[in-house]
Amino acid sequence: MKAIVHVALKAGVLDPQGKAVADTLTRMGYKEVEAARISKVIELDLDSGLSATDAENRVKEMCEKLLANTVIESYRFELSA
Amino acid sequence: MKAIVHVALKAGVLDPQGKAVADTLTRMGYKEVEAARISKVIELDLDSGLSATDAENRVKEMCEKLLANTVIESYRFELSA
Repeated sequence: MKAIVHVALKAGVLDPQGKAVADTLTRMGYKEVEAARISKVIELDLDSGLSATDAENRVKEMCEKLLANTVIESYRFELSA
Repeated sequence: MKAIVHVALKAGVLDPQGKAVADTLTRMGYKEVEAARISKVIELDLDSGLSATDAENRVKEMCEKLLANTVIESYRFELSA
């Protein structure tokens, strides 16, 4: 089983890495770039013995405890077989 | 117009950040985690004056020149209105 976890900065949180990318692209001549935001995808391989409901609950816990900093980041995830 | 660029390490390239996440989750009691891989998503806001073909070509160039290190990373992107 796989879990694909998307972790992104919440709206309104400053994204210096995204700003650096946008500024650099503009400086390189890509004037059409108005903004850039960077987010993270964490792909987890999970033991296939896990039920879908258990996986859902446990991945949610992993997000809350380690994968996302929920003060400034939001997360969502999908499970696939 | 928006471009969503996905940048991931090529297969076979060591992912120390992913390994750290997997090891930490296992140590925290999530024994079902067998592996983790981390990748990046860069969301670009582009000037809407750009045609789809131009956007496609220019975002490809941005990936090759700045967004991905094509020696060790692969990329793919989608454009949306």
